[in-house]
Amino acid sequence: MTGTSSTEDAIVEMLTSYHELNGGHVDELETTPSPLLLMQYIAKNRPFVLRGGATNWPATSLWDPAYLAMKMGNSNVKVAITPSGNADSPVRNSTDGRVYFTKPLEIEEPFDDFLTQIRQQEVEETSSTEVKYSQAQDDNLRGEYSQLYPDVPEDVRWATDCLGAPDAVNVWIGNGRSTTALHKDNYENIYCQIRGKKRFVLLPSVETPCVNIRFLPQAIYTRLRGSNSSLALSPESPSEDIPWPVWDPDRPGEEQTRFSRLSIPLHVELGPGDMLYLPALWYHKVSQECLEDRISVSVNYWYDMSFAGSLYATNAFITNISKLSNE
Amino acid sequence: MTGTSSTEDAIVEMLTSYHELNGGHVDELETTPSPLLLMQYIAKNRPFVLRGGATNWPATSLWDPAYLAMKMGNSNVKVAITPSGNADSPVRNSTDGRVYFTKPLEIEEPFDDFLTQIRQQEVEETSSTEVKYSQAQDDNLRGEYSQLYPDVPEDVRWATDCLGAPDAVNVWIGNGRSTTALHKDNYENIYCQIRGKKRFVLLPSVETPCVNIRFLPQAIYTRLRGSNSSLALSPESPSEDIPWPVWDPDRPGEEQTRFSRLSIPLHVELGPGDMLYLPALWYHKVSQECLEDRISVSVNYWYDMSFAGSLYATNAFITNISKLSNE
Repeated sequence: MTGTSSTEDAIVEMLTSYHELNGGHVDELETTPSPLLLMQYIAKNRPFVLRGGATNWPATSLWDPAYLAMKMGNSNVKVAITPSGNADSPVRNSTDGRVYFTKPLEIEEPFDDFLTQIRQQEVEETSSTEVKYSQAQDDNLRGEYSQLYPDVPEDVRWATDCLGAPDAVNVWIGNGRSTTALHKDNYENIYCQIRGKKRFVLLPSVETPCVNIRFLPQAIYTRLRGSNSSLALSPESPSEDIPWPVWDPDRPGEEQTRFSRLSIPLHVELGPGDMLYLPALWYHKVSQECLEDRISVSVNYWYDMSFAGSLYATNAFITNISKLSNE
Repeated sequence: MTGTSSTEDAIVEMLTSYHELNGGHVDELETTPSPLLLMQYIAKNRPFVLRGGATNWPATSLWDPAYLAMKMGNSNVKVAITPSGNADSPVRNSTDGRVYFTKPLEIEEPFDDFLTQIRQQEVEETSSTEVKYSQAQDDNLRGEYSQLYPDVPEDVRWATDCLGAPDAVNVWIGNGRSTTALHKDNYENIYCQIRGKKRFVLLPSVETPCVNIRFLPQAIYTRLRGSNSSLALSPESPSEDIPWPVWDPDRPGEEQTRFSRLSIPLHVELGPGDMLYLPALWYHKVSQECLEDRISVSVNYWYDMSFAGSLYATNAFITNISKLSNE
């Protein structure tokens, strides 16, 4: 160690050293992990995949469209609507040229109507229509989807033995049009694929210098002129700017920082029955694909992350230093 | 989160946030931890004390001076000699005024002679004589002290179940004159007090901006004019500078950085039979006190730390950034 001569050098050395020490891959476990093994991954803040970890859940065999429609019927569910499947993402407003953190229009509608529409859209040739995604992330599998909750375990036993009971259990239902933009969560996440496929692009938390965190004003999609008009981006006022990554690892030449080239994105594809441990504070972009039944369904368990220790405080530090360096 | 406007602000925010999230105390466990509980502390990179964790070890009752002398006899052991009990510490050289990282004079001598001298020194009124400390840290309890090894467990079961077999098992024998200067190790450390008391001043790894890391030239204590002369500090040549903390939490007004005032040193005292989990990369200063038998004896187990994950790389980053900020 000889020290580094600038902040930029120090960031480069951190990213290079991190990748040398960790490699560019996601471990695949052969068997269900013990709580101790999960804790070892949490300590390293590194992900793993458990193929077939949810294969034996009733949901994995039961949740075809007919069963879902039968169980949920015309119960109202919250549905996010966006022009192109881009919920909670940075969007440039054509009116003023500024980039906004843009939330979807959120409506409530009968589940069976929603299900019919997303499945119909999967076989349409054009992509002109708006995209719907049930992605409320508010513990909805124990709330508005509680009729389906008996078909999954109350928790992931090896995770609960390690971390305590889950804070939220969410179900995600959509089609191949939806993509969740790169972001991070303050949760340890056990992500379980039930129907269709999910593709993750994962970046470790130390790569915050690469993702171009910007403080964005907020906007929301609205229908300005009644229920049949198209969606328009409406800046919120007053609005508190929120920090958000604007770099997209799938378009690495756009919106990059001087450190983006040092990112090593990890790619994970989950099929029906597969599980992913997605560590707290990892950036992730998520897209999906439907199989023959034309739906993509996932369940995730959010467990509280530890704010004690050094991970949270040092991650904020790296974010602050890289923001100064990128200015 | 609104971001910070300077590197200095970012460091202050990190230290303040870390302390808010972690509090200024060391947990004391009531019972032997499970491997999972240890891993939770490793994940947080936070220490704990297990009072009486080694009370039932044969060593704790057997290792009085007579027993040690009987078992070791006149076997040669490595002994560190310093003018005032300051092995491996920053010392200002009176000749050239520079601060050197100074290693002790290391000799080999018969154990019974060594033991007699350190016990004799404990009852001397003056402190004019040199200080001896058996502190080889080279797996010596399985090496030159192997006659004593059967009196302790081969490993700490709950630590080995979590981390694999220990990399080194060290015994430390000295008197109240020795103090180990503030430093950190790339090991997970299970520290066990056998005789006398040990006092730790502990700083979390994120406090590296507080400890004033300097790149010091190296020196070693030598006898320049034969075996009866006093010790003199001899600069090494050629010498590679090594990074070392020069701030002493017990003299907070000297050699401080602008961040030292934000340090919250943790204090732990171990008595006979007590154990400490000392996390990798934590700064620690260690002093000792003898009880009626006039020796201080400790055993520690070094377990490999994980260089994977983000702890190591981010710790080096914080060190580099704080060095730039302190220049």
